[in-house]
Amino acid sequence: MSATPKEFLDFVDNNTDAFIKRLSEAVSIKSVSGDAAYRSEVFKMSDWISQQFKAVGVETQQVDLGKHIMDGQELQLPKAVLGRLGNNPNKKTILVYGHFDVQPANLSDGWNTDPFVLTALPNGQLVGRGSSDDKGPVLGWLNTLQYHHDNKKELPVNFRCCFEGMEENGSEGLDELVERESKPGGWFDGVDCVCISDNYWLNTRTPVLTYGLRGLSYYKLNITGPARDLHSGVFGRTVHEPMTDLIKLMSTLVDVNGKILIPGVDEMITTADVEERKLYEALDYSIDDVEASAGAPIALSTDKVEVLMGRMRMPSLSLHGIEGAFYGPGAKTVIPAKVSGKFSLRLVPPQTPENVLPLVKAHVESEFAKLGSKNKFELEELHGGKPWVTDINHWNFQAARIATKAIYNKDPDMTREGGSIPVTLTFAEALGVNVLLLPMGRGDDGAHSTNEKLDRSNFIEGTKLLGTYLYEVGAIDTK
Amino acid sequence: MSATPKEFLDFVDNNTDAFIKRLSEAVSIKSVSGDAAYRSEVFKMSDWISQQFKAVGVETQQVDLGKHIMDGQELQLPKAVLGRLGNNPNKKTILVYGHFDVQPANLSDGWNTDPFVLTALPNGQLVGRGSSDDKGPVLGWLNTLQYHHDNKKELPVNFRCCFEGMEENGSEGLDELVERESKPGGWFDGVDCVCISDNYWLNTRTPVLTYGLRGLSYYKLNITGPARDLHSGVFGRTVHEPMTDLIKLMSTLVDVNGKILIPGVDEMITTADVEERKLYEALDYSIDDVEASAGAPIALSTDKVEVLMGRMRMPSLSLHGIEGAFYGPGAKTVIPAKVSGKFSLRLVPPQTPENVLPLVKAHVESEFAKLGSKNKFELEELHGGKPWVTDINHWNFQAARIATKAIYNKDPDMTREGGSIPVTLTFAEALGVNVLLLPMGRGDDGAHSTNEKLDRSNFIEGTKLLGTYLYEVGAIDTK
Repeated sequence: MSATPKEFLDFVDNNTDAFIKRLSEAVSIKSVSGDAAYRSEVFKMSDWISQQFKAVGVETQQVDLGKHIMDGQELQLPKAVLGRLGNNPNKKTILVYGHFDVQPANLSDGWNTDPFVLTALPNGQLVGRGSSDDKGPVLGWLNTLQYHHDNKKELPVNFRCCFEGMEENGSEGLDELVERESKPGGWFDGVDCVCISDNYWLNTRTPVLTYGLRGLSYYKLNITGPARDLHSGVFGRTVHEPMTDLIKLMSTLVDVNGKILIPGVDEMITTADVEERKLYEALDYSIDDVEASAGAPIALSTDKVEVLMGRMRMPSLSLHGIEGAFYGPGAKTVIPAKVSGKFSLRLVPPQTPENVLPLVKAHVESEFAKLGSKNKFELEELHGGKPWVTDINHWNFQAARIATKAIYNKDPDMTREGGSIPVTLTFAEALGVNVLLLPMGRGDDGAHSTNEKLDRSNFIEGTKLLGTYLYEVGAIDTK
Repeated sequence: MSATPKEFLDFVDNNTDAFIKRLSEAVSIKSVSGDAAYRSEVFKMSDWISQQFKAVGVETQQVDLGKHIMDGQELQLPKAVLGRLGNNPNKKTILVYGHFDVQPANLSDGWNTDPFVLTALPNGQLVGRGSSDDKGPVLGWLNTLQYHHDNKKELPVNFRCCFEGMEENGSEGLDELVERESKPGGWFDGVDCVCISDNYWLNTRTPVLTYGLRGLSYYKLNITGPARDLHSGVFGRTVHEPMTDLIKLMSTLVDVNGKILIPGVDEMITTADVEERKLYEALDYSIDDVEASAGAPIALSTDKVEVLMGRMRMPSLSLHGIEGAFYGPGAKTVIPAKVSGKFSLRLVPPQTPENVLPLVKAHVESEFAKLGSKNKFELEELHGGKPWVTDINHWNFQAARIATKAIYNKDPDMTREGGSIPVTLTFAEALGVNVLLLPMGRGDDGAHSTNEKLDRSNFIEGTKLLGTYLYEVGAIDTK
């Protein structure tokens, strides 16, 4: 029998329109953390989140995280929002984390609608930047608290929350905050477990609990040649061209089948044995799912286990683009003077940004030296984060499993995620407690992409799931 | 004894400030032909040129060149300006060509001053987009005509001019115009020779006459994968990434020493024998010149003959950039869905866009097939133009040689240029007369680059040179 009151589930169903309206309001605030021009919107979003949680009875505090340098400017970091509600020593204390900043989005990138106007499509999709990553899930917690506030019901647990505005840009300042507040007397003191809703189902059908994340190391290959851009007619075949060097260098990093060519990187990972392959075989997932989600028949393999392991237990390397080269439409006959190739590695245990850096550095420096170019080269490391894997038999996961079955009438798939949420590891290490990832959105939501969406049913059933999870955590025997 | 009246030379010296003021006015019109957003400015520039030449007595006509498609939009082509002055059957008739459109320029590209505000530096440089390419030289002709108009002097030749506004974007519509007007009764009927001032000295010291130009073929390598941009965490190592394929493909085109790796392209060019190498050895040029001009010690060779031949008698291949990938500052973890690699070939005889296309196509298709990617690939050819080499012993060159010696007290170097002015060949073929390139600017002017400049002395002495050339053409014995 479920620990969750039917009144809560009914409340969510009856307030669907109001919840979607509130999500529209959140999406309309252009809280892009990676672009200095939008920094004031991220601040506005921090205020909005703080006010919303205050309105449902949460004691909140906006925390100044100091300054940072971005694009050569010194900028104030967006304020994190901490909150607490309840202090009953007979209840478990759970901490939820989310973020209110978003990836960049411009209509011209290929959006069908204004990315900052939440648009409800006839098929049930709610389209807008941040709908799924991560404003929808953050509002899922808010919706749950709304029920308890409006109906003067006590929560089944002591609630703590931590929402930040720099997740899409390296979570700067957050590690220090988490470490500080995890100490005795801090906002997170006494937390029994952590729940993060900031990832996705593997497909569009089956809910998941996630117990692993890949880490990230983001790099720039900077090549500098002439003092300024040159005319390719006047200078073509007279000087070393930075673009030629950079393209050669970038071509040595990964092969078209995803194998990482930097010596030692793939080799850090053990080969899966028969038993381990069975775990991936059991997941509700097909090659059709990945191709439907990508929108084209471009899977690296026809073997679902290989593709799943490629995402979950193997590192990956993606080439993102080049800064400084010609990027517009049309035909510009330029030799760019300074170009920066951007790529990132997704890491899995035992890899860390620290232990792969020497491998990356040795490789690119050796490959550049081989070229014999007179241009100048340097490797720059941007933000990074360690990978994370946890114990799926902990009561935190058991509670989430029961809650999922109650709402979706299905056992969740147990997954490792390809993306990176570095703060997961920070919480695990600072608090020494179990961390659960309990996603709201589907695998085709298009986070970081054009036309990002959250399905209406995922927003509503997902809200019920988060609330139900709190009740199951409250009820579960932890002995 | 020079055929040029001293009064003309004095007039130029005495009107320097007014000439520079007029150049400022020309530079302030943002006539960027390669960007649809600036098309009205190119139209404005056509009107301005027409009015200016009319004001010095030239009969002008603005010619509608029809429409074209750019960046998916149908646009009206900028009107070309034709002009004529004088119809004396006892005088030679010369046609001058220039262009009033410019390359794109944004302060954020790295300009020290607003690119559309002509800025006179203490070192004598006049900095601004189009100062040297090609508004300065066009105004050189205007300055010359001003003398004759203001002082009611007859020109030593019959003057014809043709100025266009699409040179930086493939000279669309011009070939048809030139062919039409070269027929009996056309504006160019009876032309004895052509003079184009739209290139540069080899260095900063010695004036040149130019008798060869490289051609151009501009290509796009389009690779399409997923239906939309993907998150590199969720999709990294599960799908074929278009950027990975593109970088591999682009890395097979040229080596870091400028050697073209497309089979058959370099092989079309004969090796220079000892006699031919001597021509290059004789030029006033050093490795220091190319490196000063590029602003860094990055010449492909320490042998000046090799570097000069690389520019003048060899094809070159430059990688310009990628459309559709991440190009901004910062760290975006995107897998771009559709990317287009831009590169161009500079061609020399016997190469033509037509005879290299099959080689390029065969190479890139074979290399893409080798990758075994499931993404889609197509080669797209953008604008192109044939290379050109002419006879340096023609009276047109002799007159220019005498004029150069008169103004600069130096014999000009005879050069072939690395850049492309496809209309040169159009004039040569349509009119069947000799075409001379008589540059005004220096090798370090930075056409197509940031901080483009024209030295004040080159603008003023260059104006004298153009006028003197007209007198020497008028005086020379053509038998």
